[in-house]
Amino acid sequence: MIKAGILGATGNVGQRFVQMLAGHPWFEITALAASERSAGKPYEEVAKWRLDTTMPEEVRKMKVVPTKPEAMDVDIVFSAMPAEEALKVEADFAKAGVIVSSNASSWRMEKDVPLMIPEVNPEHLGLIDVQRKKRKWDGAIVTNPNCSTIMMVVTLKPLMKFGIENIHVSTMQAVSGAGYEGVPSMAIVDNMIPFIGKEEEKMESETLKLLGSLEKGQVRDAPFWVSAACHRVAVLDGHTMSVWLRAKKNPSPEDVRKAFEKFNPKLSDLPTSPEKAIIVRDEPDRPQPRLDRMQGNGMSVSVGRIRAGHDNAIKYVLMGHNTIRGAAGASVLNAELLKKKGFL
Amino acid sequence: MIKAGILGATGNVGQRFVQMLAGHPWFEITALAASERSAGKPYEEVAKWRLDTTMPEEVRKMKVVPTKPEAMDVDIVFSAMPAEEALKVEADFAKAGVIVSSNASSWRMEKDVPLMIPEVNPEHLGLIDVQRKKRKWDGAIVTNPNCSTIMMVVTLKPLMKFGIENIHVSTMQAVSGAGYEGVPSMAIVDNMIPFIGKEEEKMESETLKLLGSLEKGQVRDAPFWVSAACHRVAVLDGHTMSVWLRAKKNPSPEDVRKAFEKFNPKLSDLPTSPEKAIIVRDEPDRPQPRLDRMQGNGMSVSVGRIRAGHDNAIKYVLMGHNTIRGAAGASVLNAELLKKKGFL
Amino acid sequence: MIKAGILGATGNVGQRFVQMLAGHPWFEITALAASERSAGKPYEEVAKWRLDTTMPEEVRKMKVVPTKPEAMDVDIVFSAMPAEEALKVEADFAKAGVIVSSNASSWRMEKDVPLMIPEVNPEHLGLIDVQRKKRKWDGAIVTNPNCSTIMMVVTLKPLMKFGIENIHVSTMQAVSGAGYEGVPSMAIVDNMIPFIGKEEEKMESETLKLLGSLEKGQVRDAPFWVSAACHRVAVLDGHTMSVWLRAKKNPSPEDVRKAFEKFNPKLSDLPTSPEKAIIVRDEPDRPQPRLDRMQGNGMSVSVGRIRAGHDNAIKYVLMGHNTIRGAAGASVLNAELLKKKGFL
Amino acid sequence: MIKAGILGATGNVGQRFVQMLAGHPWFEITALAASERSAGKPYEEVAKWRLDTTMPEEVRKMKVVPTKPEAMDVDIVFSAMPAEEALKVEADFAKAGVIVSSNASSWRMEKDVPLMIPEVNPEHLGLIDVQRKKRKWDGAIVTNPNCSTIMMVVTLKPLMKFGIENIHVSTMQAVSGAGYEGVPSMAIVDNMIPFIGKEEEKMESETLKLLGSLEKGQVRDAPFWVSAACHRVAVLDGHTMSVWLRAKKNPSPEDVRKAFEKFNPKLSDLPTSPEKAIIVRDEPDRPQPRLDRMQGNGMSVSVGRIRAGHDNAIKYVLMGHNTIRGAAGASVLNAELLKKKGFL
Repeated sequence: MIKAGILGATGNVGQRFVQMLAGHPWFEITALAASERSAGKPYEEVAKWRLDTTMPEEVRKMKVVPTKPEAMDVDIVFSAMPAEEALKVEADFAKAGVIVSSNASSWRMEKDVPLMIPEVNPEHLGLIDVQRKKRKWDGAIVTNPNCSTIMMVVTLKPLMKFGIENIHVSTMQAVSGAGYEGVPSMAIVDNMIPFIGKEEEKMESETLKLLGSLEKGQVRDAPFWVSAACHRVAVLDGHTMSVWLRAKKNPSPEDVRKAFEKFNPKLSDLPTSPEKAIIVRDEPDRPQPRLDRMQGNGMSVSVGRIRAGHDNAIKYVLMGHNTIRGAAGASVLNAELLKKKGFL
Repeated sequence: MIKAGILGATGNVGQRFVQMLAGHPWFEITALAASERSAGKPYEEVAKWRLDTTMPEEVRKMKVVPTKPEAMDVDIVFSAMPAEEALKVEADFAKAGVIVSSNASSWRMEKDVPLMIPEVNPEHLGLIDVQRKKRKWDGAIVTNPNCSTIMMVVTLKPLMKFGIENIHVSTMQAVSGAGYEGVPSMAIVDNMIPFIGKEEEKMESETLKLLGSLEKGQVRDAPFWVSAACHRVAVLDGHTMSVWLRAKKNPSPEDVRKAFEKFNPKLSDLPTSPEKAIIVRDEPDRPQPRLDRMQGNGMSVSVGRIRAGHDNAIKYVLMGHNTIRGAAGASVLNAELLKKKGFL
Repeated sequence: MIKAGILGATGNVGQRFVQMLAGHPWFEITALAASERSAGKPYEEVAKWRLDTTMPEEVRKMKVVPTKPEAMDVDIVFSAMPAEEALKVEADFAKAGVIVSSNASSWRMEKDVPLMIPEVNPEHLGLIDVQRKKRKWDGAIVTNPNCSTIMMVVTLKPLMKFGIENIHVSTMQAVSGAGYEGVPSMAIVDNMIPFIGKEEEKMESETLKLLGSLEKGQVRDAPFWVSAACHRVAVLDGHTMSVWLRAKKNPSPEDVRKAFEKFNPKLSDLPTSPEKAIIVRDEPDRPQPRLDRMQGNGMSVSVGRIRAGHDNAIKYVLMGHNTIRGAAGASVLNAELLKKKGFL
Repeated sequence: MIKAGILGATGNVGQRFVQMLAGHPWFEITALAASERSAGKPYEEVAKWRLDTTMPEEVRKMKVVPTKPEAMDVDIVFSAMPAEEALKVEADFAKAGVIVSSNASSWRMEKDVPLMIPEVNPEHLGLIDVQRKKRKWDGAIVTNPNCSTIMMVVTLKPLMKFGIENIHVSTMQAVSGAGYEGVPSMAIVDNMIPFIGKEEEKMESETLKLLGSLEKGQVRDAPFWVSAACHRVAVLDGHTMSVWLRAKKNPSPEDVRKAFEKFNPKLSDLPTSPEKAIIVRDEPDRPQPRLDRMQGNGMSVSVGRIRAGHDNAIKYVLMGHNTIRGAAGASVLNAELLKKKGFL
């Protein structure tokens, strides 16, 4: 078993890491790190558990440790750190020889750091060599995208062949994306908020790196643009997005539907990989977050309403579970790929 | 006082009509029409009142009448009828010499029927002559747009001078838009629905008629396209929309902001007209439905987040009260214009 | 396998029956009954599926049949019929030799009909003989209580030994209890409703029958009173209740806690029986519907906040899943007991 | 005009104070106090305004001051301080000769501090003399009850004549009662919480002081008990409560209804006093927070469902606006009474 630590283990995404790694066939949780004042106390005492499954037995009594490489006996850490802190902390771990599979945004856009979705750009793992040479690290940092970006990019990958020219995307995002205390009830009951800090910028930049090509140790951004408008709505889990897509080859809705259906990355040997990366729904009013977010154990992205737009554009709706497919599950799947490719 | 009747007086929009017309300086409610089985009973008995103001005294004991011209002593009727029924019923009233100010969709796209927003296209009232000649009616039908369209078009009017080329719009609409029983709580608590029947079609067509020019008794559609994606969210009242707008003159966000600020239709003599048709918000996270929908007594449209998009586009967010500005208030304002122009 | 039919198969509770019976080790769904206009069509076409698990393969193509004994080849039917219709329909099935495990309220308070919770009053099955003799039925009707009553009574059973004198109970019930379209979103977003039709009466009467003793073919009501106040809140699934209980022996909170913990009905051979009928929570703010309703696959009742009240009363909070433990799961568990006791 | 300051002016209740005092006929806002780091900045810059009316012009540019008597030129301060800080701060103001009308809980149960509802126990103002003598203050502290207590006690006052013996009360409280960030959306969307810290204790003790008699400079608690169970539900504003009341004279529901209707405290000369302190609703499903909370500008308490309980008890439901009648409005009404009685 590979020894796995979790950084930021008591928060929203940290708890999802615990939930997904408990009983994992390849990883064993050997360390749970949180803030200094939690260190030394049993996890069940410091983590206010808020998932609707029971806290796994194996972590209840585990003593929380400080967020330092020397405090943890691990081969890999899963990071749910806040961006400000992740910058230094994750580098410390990589320097100390640990693989860091991170959900934080700090390192995503660094040129020598893979920003990864196993179904989309597994070849970007090639950046690890570049990273290690440049930084003289024994470990490495591998990141997954922002929770909105990841859902959208999974659906864009099979459409790349049509020659994407531009994308307009409007998101309706769940409150869990802001962390447990991120959105007060007074802000969202009978309301929605047409703004999420830095979210539009992330969707507009990360997408191009993810769909870019690795050439001579560098990622060349995909040659199109994304224009995002991000909104918060009163949904617990599950980000929904409406997409307008223009592509050179002017695919028909049926072409797009087929491309989604045929998208079938060969990841069946990764335990967290869903049977279908994309599920196409034909009902007029699907996907919906409450009904569809747990498809593929929260790892499938559901699409629907594929239809013609103006100017030969395609319109469609996509939805995925933001703290599973869009966060903890994304990091775990990345780690599984790393193991398969021999990095662990 | 002008004698006013309300068709569909017991429903969501019908109750808003009652609320807005009770105490109105020009109109006096003289008849409340509803379904056959309500006829003959006092309004307070058949209307399950669901607004957070008290039912006006003047309508409590008023006997509900059947929806027929001969049953009502009125100069004008405000129609909150369902579309299927409005087609025939509204024509019956117009034929009988009554002015119909309608919120129903049935007649909106008829060539000789004005589709009106007083701040936007008052000159389209010219169609009434055409209508009366063609149909030999003594009355007339005047309509207001769909609740989403109306908010957006109020904000597009001052931008017409930039030479609009196309619009992408994503809506996040309140549940009251579907009528009191339209959206079950099980459909929307912890959920959103990426579909509203016929709504995208309405936004894409009505907008062009509203912003079109009246030439020789005909409306020539505005020369651009609108591509809409409509969604339902867990908000009681207030439709929010994100807009991407491309215009020939490539206005800057500041140009657009100024155009909104300077938009000042001369309607101060209409009682229901708000002080400002458009309110510009500079906070990064506004407008929001719960906080801003009652601005201008529910008749102002709030805009915010005016920013640059890709390809010289402008992005912004707009929000307005769907059952006031977007429905009952729209019909009442139309009626006030009709009175001012001498049709009543 | 026992051949099972579902009456009212397309509604909220009907879908739960389908979900719980698909793959059941003892029962096989052989017939799905719904309204006349659905008859003859495949289930997937007439049932708008609203659960967050996928519709089971085995029912998708099954043709819906009319709600008549002669149309169904079944040993047992699970009834999710509306009360008005259940009175006649369920009798028809019992007359035709079919066992009816009903969630409807129509027959619950009939003297010769068992009102059952397997953990509470399995001996009431003795009423079946009385029923068959009296009515000359080859089949039989067995009912489960109202969804609120069932949760409370599961927690009262282990407290009976303290000599219950009276109970005040205030419920905060989920919207799913009213059926899919029962509570419009406009009625409950930013709101609660302090009334549920007939609910207080049901809790006050059914409880006494359930906890009564079977003596000479008759149930003698339990000798205390229940005073209920029922409220609807914006929760999808999970009824929460606050209880004040007065008992002759003046048990301490610790006595009550122990009684809950030790309550361990021997039902481990019934597939739907949860490991623990009652789960005691010690956190100050639990149970909560979203976090605890799926405990025991939705069949456990969670209790918490056991504390002293005035006048030697005990106060506590209880919560359970209303459409599983409180409806479909209750009927299925009853049916499993019937099978074990040889009635099937 | 009386010079009024607001302590804690930027929070939820502080904003309500601003809203209610702006344009008040007797009071003029002369100082807004908040935390040290806000001091010196304009109110519009430090207060994130979250009410659905516009921030009053008169406070926008007002510089926020530190929470110290010497920093404020005031005759009275309205306190929305957190309980921990209010203990010392409010005493400092009273010592400095200022009247403190406080919504904080710190001083409520002190023997020489009036806990007041003008409609209920205006004679308790007599404690001010006791307080001033004992503490040698030129100013004074007057408090209003907890937001739940206040609603209930307004309805209990007219029932005192029946000889109240005991009360069971179950509350369903709005999220605004916990402050703007008090209840995360993840805690309450599709959920309710059966616990509010210290709330039950407050209801059980404050009620007795409020309904107690002032005898020889001391309040003698009312001679009955209150047993409360407090719950948080997904409502923005408006606390709803179900009450069971036992009284010696066994009043009928109709007796109770009449007592409510006849309750008519003579406060018409206080500007914030509602026309009716209690509004009786006869619909089976009222009062409801969203529909009834703004009755009497948020100062009326609505009651309904008056019905017979077991053991000669009376059951009823009550509801009032927790941040107006239950907080800011309560303090303002107290201050108006102080002015009328010559303390200002």
